[in-house]
Amino acid sequence: MSTAQVVRRVAVFGGTHGNEMSGVYLVKRWLQNQEAITRPSFLTVPCIANPRAVERCRRYIDIQIQMVDWLVAVLFHSMDVPSTAPYEVHRAVELNKKFGAAGEAFDVIIDLHNTTSNMGNCLIIGSSTDSFTLQMVRYLVQRSGLVCPVFLTENPASHVKMADTRSMGVHGIGLELGAQPQGVLLADIFLRHERLVHTCLDFIHKFNQGELFPKETLEVYRILHVVDYPRNKDNDLSAMIHPELQDKDWHPLQPGDPMFLTLDGETIKYEGDSTIYPAFINEAAYYEKGIAFWATQKETLNVNELQVKN
Amino acid sequence: MSTAQVVRRVAVFGGTHGNEMSGVYLVKRWLQNQEAITRPSFLTVPCIANPRAVERCRRYIDIQIQMVDWLVAVLFHSMDVPSTAPYEVHRAVELNKKFGAAGEAFDVIIDLHNTTSNMGNCLIIGSSTDSFTLQMVRYLVQRSGLVCPVFLTENPASHVKMADTRSMGVHGIGLELGAQPQGVLLADIFLRHERLVHTCLDFIHKFNQGELFPKETLEVYRILHVVDYPRNKDNDLSAMIHPELQDKDWHPLQPGDPMFLTLDGETIKYEGDSTIYPAFINEAAYYEKGIAFWATQKETLNVNELQVKN
Repeated sequence: MSTAQVVRRVAVFGGTHGNEMSGVYLVKRWLQNQEAITRPSFLTVPCIANPRAVERCRRYIDIQIQMVDWLVAVLFHSMDVPSTAPYEVHRAVELNKKFGAAGEAFDVIIDLHNTTSNMGNCLIIGSSTDSFTLQMVRYLVQRSGLVCPVFLTENPASHVKMADTRSMGVHGIGLELGAQPQGVLLADIFLRHERLVHTCLDFIHKFNQGELFPKETLEVYRILHVVDYPRNKDNDLSAMIHPELQDKDWHPLQPGDPMFLTLDGETIKYEGDSTIYPAFINEAAYYEKGIAFWATQKETLNVNELQVKN
Repeated sequence: MSTAQVVRRVAVFGGTHGNEMSGVYLVKRWLQNQEAITRPSFLTVPCIANPRAVERCRRYIDIQIQMVDWLVAVLFHSMDVPSTAPYEVHRAVELNKKFGAAGEAFDVIIDLHNTTSNMGNCLIIGSSTDSFTLQMVRYLVQRSGLVCPVFLTENPASHVKMADTRSMGVHGIGLELGAQPQGVLLADIFLRHERLVHTCLDFIHKFNQGELFPKETLEVYRILHVVDYPRNKDNDLSAMIHPELQDKDWHPLQPGDPMFLTLDGETIKYEGDSTIYPAFINEAAYYEKGIAFWATQKETLNVNELQVKN
């Protein structure tokens, strides 16, 4: 049996990336009508995480809020921020004061994202041991009425500490819906994003009311490593995702399966020695990061019984 | 019977919009291997139309090359360009010297574009009377092996002169393939784009060799007007494309059909008094232009018999 503190404050972030439109427009709407995301037992605060990027409909202004060493230093080691620092560093410091450990950290942060990859209703979590978040994810999987693959960014073999906006809270979850082009608002994805947020809030309210969530198992896709596009001597693409792999996020990729197609029409096969499950296949924002897709492995986590701490 | 001059020089433009990736990568490849687009009877020149925008993977740097009054003035009235002019104006002047009427205009310009809309293999033409281009389009429709809807931007009721990159040539065609997110290279679309260019070049070579192209008819979608998203007092979106309209480019929209869905979940119906055929539904680049889609009407053009002028 695990217990967790009662939840008093929940933040819902949209526009962490300014051109991921369903989160942006859900949060804009909730800023006008906060009652829509109110539950009796806790406060919910909607927030446009990167307002300047939203204004310009760009992913970011200077740097990505996520996964920046400098940012990690600022957030976790209280480094001073020089005035010349990128806009996103200043903004991350503001967010960290309001929602993170630099102030009184919010209990839950729900971070809304879109991807150009065919990821469906992907739930992103950073820990295989946070029973509260795991039970919330299990609740989404069972109760949202949507198919929700779970992407686990925890990798014991990696030394990279991932600092993202949601990791500022005590518990955090990313709702990463796709496929949706950058700068496009798809009604279908907007409605699914909305439903997932409401299902999270329903879970939290039940948890606060003392409901016992039983021991469970949960299927997740755990990150292994990234795979980049084949590139030429100028570091430009020399191949594309193979048509047979495109849109096949979460499907097994077996040794010998087509992986890339060169610009000259030659197929490049996957030559690993075990089955992987690609995710974030052909995400627009990852070309500059050297990521054609993430290789993941499928595994089953045990989820502890959970109840609010008295 | 129409005749046209033998074709000596053809330009293939990619990257007129820097984040429309299949044109960008086809042209980059052909710049390395110009033989792939060589035909015995004419010269083919590949060109990255907006190299700075391609470098940054953005649609444009300062302004769009297309449809800018200022640009029209420069291109058609030989206005001097001040050094402070937007980058795209300078670039348009360079292109116009090399490919357009400021020098010896190229015979044919093939302009490669992508759209986030579900337009399929759309062919864009600007004239209902240019027999050469109409016969080339008819050839693509009949011989490419692909379904190719034809978008006609000529509207007798409109006083806007559309100055686009392809209008610099004697004849011009846009190959507008989608759906493809901005900044994403989809192999399937790359291959279709490539096939369409080769089919154009095959047509031109046959034309040069004296082949007689018989009288035909051609079904086209002629632009009527644009329809914008419903907006709030801040000019921000208050509704999205309705899920039943999304991806339905070229399908008839009848009075009473769902058109938009407000952020609060209310359906807005199409209330025109005649059937229209929407195109460019939910194109990312058109949010800032106030275009949710183009209304078009379907009509059948007569295409004259055509042979090269002796």
